[in-house]
Amino acid sequence: MTSILIKNAEIITMNQKEEIIHGDLYIENDRIVAIGENLPYSAEKVIDGTNRTVIPGFVQTHIHLCQTLFRGQADDLELLDWLKKKVWPLEAAHDEESSYYSAMLGIGELIQSGTTTIVDMETVHHTDNAFQAIYESGIRALSGKVMMDKGAEVPLLLREDTNKSIQQSVDLLEKWHGRDDGRIQYAFSPRFVVSCTEDLLVQVRDLSKKYQVKVHTHASENQGEIELVEQEKGMRNVVYLDHIGLANENLILAHCVWLDEEEKQIISKRGVKVSHCPGSNLKLASGIADIPDLVELEAFVSLGADGAPCNNNLDMFNEMRLAAVIQKPKHGPTCMNAETIFKMATIGGAKAVGMEDQIGSLEVGKKADIVILNLNDFHLYPSSEVDTISRIVYSTTRADVETTIVNGKILMENRIMKSVDKPLVLKEVNKSIKRLLKRIPSIGY
Amino acid sequence: MTSILIKNAEIITMNQKEEIIHGDLYIENDRIVAIGENLPYSAEKVIDGTNRTVIPGFVQTHIHLCQTLFRGQADDLELLDWLKKKVWPLEAAHDEESSYYSAMLGIGELIQSGTTTIVDMETVHHTDNAFQAIYESGIRALSGKVMMDKGAEVPLLLREDTNKSIQQSVDLLEKWHGRDDGRIQYAFSPRFVVSCTEDLLVQVRDLSKKYQVKVHTHASENQGEIELVEQEKGMRNVVYLDHIGLANENLILAHCVWLDEEEKQIISKRGVKVSHCPGSNLKLASGIADIPDLVELEAFVSLGADGAPCNNNLDMFNEMRLAAVIQKPKHGPTCMNAETIFKMATIGGAKAVGMEDQIGSLEVGKKADIVILNLNDFHLYPSSEVDTISRIVYSTTRADVETTIVNGKILMENRIMKSVDKPLVLKEVNKSIKRLLKRIPSIGY
Repeated sequence: MTSILIKNAEIITMNQKEEIIHGDLYIENDRIVAIGENLPYSAEKVIDGTNRTVIPGFVQTHIHLCQTLFRGQADDLELLDWLKKKVWPLEAAHDEESSYYSAMLGIGELIQSGTTTIVDMETVHHTDNAFQAIYESGIRALSGKVMMDKGAEVPLLLREDTNKSIQQSVDLLEKWHGRDDGRIQYAFSPRFVVSCTEDLLVQVRDLSKKYQVKVHTHASENQGEIELVEQEKGMRNVVYLDHIGLANENLILAHCVWLDEEEKQIISKRGVKVSHCPGSNLKLASGIADIPDLVELEAFVSLGADGAPCNNNLDMFNEMRLAAVIQKPKHGPTCMNAETIFKMATIGGAKAVGMEDQIGSLEVGKKADIVILNLNDFHLYPSSEVDTISRIVYSTTRADVETTIVNGKILMENRIMKSVDKPLVLKEVNKSIKRLLKRIPSIGY
Repeated sequence: MTSILIKNAEIITMNQKEEIIHGDLYIENDRIVAIGENLPYSAEKVIDGTNRTVIPGFVQTHIHLCQTLFRGQADDLELLDWLKKKVWPLEAAHDEESSYYSAMLGIGELIQSGTTTIVDMETVHHTDNAFQAIYESGIRALSGKVMMDKGAEVPLLLREDTNKSIQQSVDLLEKWHGRDDGRIQYAFSPRFVVSCTEDLLVQVRDLSKKYQVKVHTHASENQGEIELVEQEKGMRNVVYLDHIGLANENLILAHCVWLDEEEKQIISKRGVKVSHCPGSNLKLASGIADIPDLVELEAFVSLGADGAPCNNNLDMFNEMRLAAVIQKPKHGPTCMNAETIFKMATIGGAKAVGMEDQIGSLEVGKKADIVILNLNDFHLYPSSEVDTISRIVYSTTRADVETTIVNGKILMENRIMKSVDKPLVLKEVNKSIKRLLKRIPSIGY
């Protein structure tokens, strides 16, 4: 048995009553065993929480680890250029090693900035290597290979046969789903309606039901995409997803920038999970998703940074601040307050992945996915007479995360990475991106 | 004579040719003496720049140091509540000590995040204490007491007699303008048209000409304000400023969110300097300034974080990223690219304060206002095959600033503050905000 005792900290529980407790938190193995003042436990590992703030680890519900390697390769570009000239060729150029290190780079950044659970979409190939990185790093993740069996402008290497795509997905699921006591899960990941046949989407629907796993896809990110869907299917994007039976509580839809009223109602009624990605939506000029409307409809909204080439960070603090402020010019300054945003980033994410009984808040019996913040610096003061959640949402940055614990394991302590070899990863990603860029001209279309 | 040699670094000069030099930078006293490969100088202080990136210090052209103490006191509030219930009473409650520590808190944050020059607007009283903090800290600053001789809803303590306001401004100017070899400058700071009589504004115009100093004010931040100006003056805000002769090259206008075509033309033609504050404009629900239009007109645009209660940070990295991405949904993804933004943050700011021959780029003969970045971490990799300016604008954060030099003096080295006593300032600001909040109920209206 391993045990950790965090002593004398400010603990933001995010439980039902949203209690803030000044005291101790005790962990045995992967679980929180007790929270309270002066807990009578001794532990193998004692962390002094004096002047520290303890929060639930963040849950990011839309990430592309395979793209972390492409950070800075596709700035200030038109969306079609972004996808066709940069991201797809780069994805096609990936090899086993580059896929592994791209994932490790992203995971390192995520752990360092307090994210403990991700919903990740990989590329067509080498997803096994990304899972290996997830496994070794200790981060909690739902991941899956992207599926795309349609679309002429895609590099040859990324165009899939429907049944092969399904078979490879199921093979990965059977290998990885549930590993490490459920820390790793599979999620079927059709890219978006535009690049998937109905045959594929219907099979995915049935398989997700059979295996009881999530489906993770993009929807209504930009106007070109929704026009294309409407032309092809004769209906709106989310209406189509509902029509084929995919719009259910197991569906995680990234973006949802261009929803009409009917689509918002479907999302709310069916319990579809929306992953709001404000940083990516701004940088790719997609627009500003109407999140206040979805909140009003009691839809499930969580947050995600998307991929590094469209953000360019995987940092929940950036996404929280953006999600709070970008709605205010249209909806007024009281809209999307700090508390609403912090919930989206924690328990909201947990609900998106169907794990609200396991993660997303600090409660006895839940998994120990915990972040310790050091909020003692100029940019975070005064600390007196100020609401802590406002301090976290509006002023805290990635570097204020001191320690990150996932599933009861310390993955970063006092900014020192425990499970990801930083010097090695930084060296290898530089080698990998050079190799991929050289390979691109030889990729067939 | 003091001398500093930074060796073996990547130097982003931002000179006319936008050269990036891999080599050394040599400083004597307050000036850059040489930049090049293998410089033949020895120096008192040698800084190893291996794997480091050297940039010009950032210039923020709209800051309220006096409000740093109010960080987190006024989140998610309507603008009028923000000003009348929170910021004005808090400003009125300031005392000498709280003004000094509020300034020190802000300056600490600014130095730590790479800002070396600010244009600062203080409150009605205790501006001498803010200047004292500026003086001791070593930051380069233009500052001035706010002037407000009109407006019934202002706390009594902030309502000024016109001539007293002028006299106090001139007294401060004569005491502080030009101190420390010109590092400190005075700027007349009428709050905004709504709170100033024409008599005051006309006197400010003449005095700024007489003393050759800048005028720093707010304009067209929100729709209520411009409607009020139009009702009172029968013309648009910037048209009015032009009408009374204030719209000239010495005027720094913060915000400029709600300009019409005529006002944009006036700003461009008169050489008025615009301080774009995207973080504040979003959080206060003011709107998104039409900066691409102003850039098109070759207007002078620079960046500022505004005050801590409306941001909640004084961090140029946040403002750069926001300034880049918030325009894209309307103007497309190629708009406001990383290079345009980085210029605004450096040489653009230098132009705003009329010091483009002294600061804003790294060139021989210029003042040594220099920031050293350590861009070696997960969130900044890959570093190969990526444009450095894109890395700085889109991925760098405050904590990646390693060393900050102003006027040839090292104010932070390897994250250790040299001129601001961090533990003391953090302790004192907590005492100050408690004292001010207790005082507010006794402030008369």
